[in-house]
Amino acid sequence: MTTSHTDAFPLSRRMRDVRGSAIRDLLTLTARPDVLSLAGGLPATEALPRDRIAAAAERALRRPAAVQYGETAGLADLREALAVHESGRLGRPVGAADVLVTSGSQQALDLLARAVVDPGDAVVVEDPVYVGALQVFQAAGADLHAVPLDADGMDLDALEALLRGGLRPRLVHTVSSFHNPRGVTLAPDRRARLAGLADRYGLLVVEDDPYGLLAFDGVPPRPVAAHGDRVVRLGSASKILAPALRVGWLTGPAPVVAAVERLRQCADLCGSTFTHAIAAELLADGPWLAAHLHRLRTEGAARAAAFGAAVDAAFGAAVVRSRPTGGMFCWLEVTDGTDTDVLLDRALAAGVAFVPGSAFSVGRPRTEAARCCFATLGGSALREAVSRLAAAWRAAATHGRPA
Amino acid sequence: MTTSHTDAFPLSRRMRDVRGSAIRDLLTLTARPDVLSLAGGLPATEALPRDRIAAAAERALRRPAAVQYGETAGLADLREALAVHESGRLGRPVGAADVLVTSGSQQALDLLARAVVDPGDAVVVEDPVYVGALQVFQAAGADLHAVPLDADGMDLDALEALLRGGLRPRLVHTVSSFHNPRGVTLAPDRRARLAGLADRYGLLVVEDDPYGLLAFDGVPPRPVAAHGDRVVRLGSASKILAPALRVGWLTGPAPVVAAVERLRQCADLCGSTFTHAIAAELLADGPWLAAHLHRLRTEGAARAAAFGAAVDAAFGAAVVRSRPTGGMFCWLEVTDGTDTDVLLDRALAAGVAFVPGSAFSVGRPRTEAARCCFATLGGSALREAVSRLAAAWRAAATHGRPA
Repeated sequence: MTTSHTDAFPLSRRMRDVRGSAIRDLLTLTARPDVLSLAGGLPATEALPRDRIAAAAERALRRPAAVQYGETAGLADLREALAVHESGRLGRPVGAADVLVTSGSQQALDLLARAVVDPGDAVVVEDPVYVGALQVFQAAGADLHAVPLDADGMDLDALEALLRGGLRPRLVHTVSSFHNPRGVTLAPDRRARLAGLADRYGLLVVEDDPYGLLAFDGVPPRPVAAHGDRVVRLGSASKILAPALRVGWLTGPAPVVAAVERLRQCADLCGSTFTHAIAAELLADGPWLAAHLHRLRTEGAARAAAFGAAVDAAFGAAVVRSRPTGGMFCWLEVTDGTDTDVLLDRALAAGVAFVPGSAFSVGRPRTEAARCCFATLGGSALREAVSRLAAAWRAAATHGRPA
Repeated sequence: MTTSHTDAFPLSRRMRDVRGSAIRDLLTLTARPDVLSLAGGLPATEALPRDRIAAAAERALRRPAAVQYGETAGLADLREALAVHESGRLGRPVGAADVLVTSGSQQALDLLARAVVDPGDAVVVEDPVYVGALQVFQAAGADLHAVPLDADGMDLDALEALLRGGLRPRLVHTVSSFHNPRGVTLAPDRRARLAGLADRYGLLVVEDDPYGLLAFDGVPPRPVAAHGDRVVRLGSASKILAPALRVGWLTGPAPVVAAVERLRQCADLCGSTFTHAIAAELLADGPWLAAHLHRLRTEGAARAAAFGAAVDAAFGAAVVRSRPTGGMFCWLEVTDGTDTDVLLDRALAAGVAFVPGSAFSVGRPRTEAARCCFATLGGSALREAVSRLAAAWRAAATHGRPA
């Protein structure tokens, strides 16, 4: 008996909803040495504390247990260091038992979606949306509802209108500080109001906060979670220590944290005891961390300013841009009708990459927009990237204007 | 408006099907220094090549890219080394593009289940089953069908009877070599027959093979995947290099590998470039690897023999045990009616841990069975563990015999 399946490899229905990441695909393209990339959300490689990591790695490996399996929730020392950090951010005690270490904050987001979202459940996301959240919620089969952002972050009047209209989302996802991709930060009064809405309507807010410590003024915004208990906070060491440690974390209501931990058992058993030990040492070294973060912020602010000035000089009124006060991203909106999907092809030919707005679109199209990461490139490379982008734009304006 | 949800944190329906791992939970208990553990599937900590890892770590960190984000499919050097390894195992060329690196083989299994199994789909597992597979397929909502094992591995007559009866599983999962927990190995003729059944019925076999290189005779069994194309192979560096590298891998039909890679983008973006670089160096160093594996196998064989002899001496005819020819596990069946769930409590009190058969049960109960890992403890500790187990058994036989 030979069935008709013999040559086919059927995939799950879920796979129809799983978009590849345009950004991750673009990263492969932009690995070309002739392309200056504003596309990836990569911290500056030269700013990552390699020497400090090497010293911590050497120390960690003196202990035999550093190469063995670890607890699913993460290395105890790391959870302790993260609990101290989160306690400081929230202004109330967070215990090590309330912290779950994950493989970057992306894993926290994916496991959280699997733990609380059933296919068809409503989930609120920001528009434009963090691509990694969009992928996760699509894979979970969520019914997505978009709430727009303005210069002060998520438009809570729009959110409250949805809630008053009867929507009961399982999750409301927000990148509260230095938004990816939009570059804006949720205003203090909105943070309190969002936590209040969560209490009032029995929602769960996901405060996705990988960039909070990259506040240019050295004062990380007070988290939404400082204002209420119905908030799951996601953090990451990728933007402040190194992506290759694969250390993110999740804190929040105990039943949710426990469910995510149970899912992690079958997702990948545990993280790396070795990289957890490195992260624990660096995060617990207060004076070193403070100085390191100061350098990151200072350099980030300088790059944001240089990028902004170069864009203003090259594009003038043809581009309206966000004014980032931290983080890694600047959002450009081209006002002359240029389609940024078309522009990307020309930009790659000119040796520069960015992410077109369409990648972050969940409500209306974003063909006028572009996300640029100002953190990756320094000095002359950053200016050259803007110069190439402007040249590509001028060429597109001449030849490629959409009808 | 205050809803009744205010104090509740509803979880997804999936969470009802996600069992915690009895083994992972037990690991927390057995972290007590007074407990000698035969429970975890932990390689011998002192046999993990910490010095070699430290040297590779130091070298890896000379390159700035080692701490940056990496490609979702894994570091190119590592995929190349794994492709060479898999080519050797399969006896035909496997390209680096056909290898996807995952966070241990457990992540490969989880992502594979998400990529091909819809809720309600039939999946065939072995009985007794690898706990991590059971958790993954339960979380995927699979309709599980158990096929028994005998001394030559999966009973293919039983599998074929299911297929002839009309069952069309999405996946057939097997730990083909040195089975966890059963300690048996799929016989060569059954390997060819299983691949043939996959072709004939359009199945996809998951050959879960973390232990193949731990063959005591130095000759890893020829993989099922050497006999056909409808096989996804999972491998792991955890048992041969170190669990903390979090390096596993998956090879198989291109559409399946591509789907798993797409899912990994949203699961956790990528693995650690740093630990990938370490694993790549060690796996590519042929002479060192050969000598290291020789030491692992020699020590493993000695521990298996010591464990077996101690069990035979202490239990005599009251225990029938598997005769492992590689890997890490020995399966005990107590013939005097002792309930191993009851025995575990007494064993913990006596300072020794094992995993009761009930943890691996998918068809019939396994209350007569116990999985013991002979790899973790050495010399006198291993003998002392068996001595404590025998004392607990004698106490249970006197006081705790089930009615």
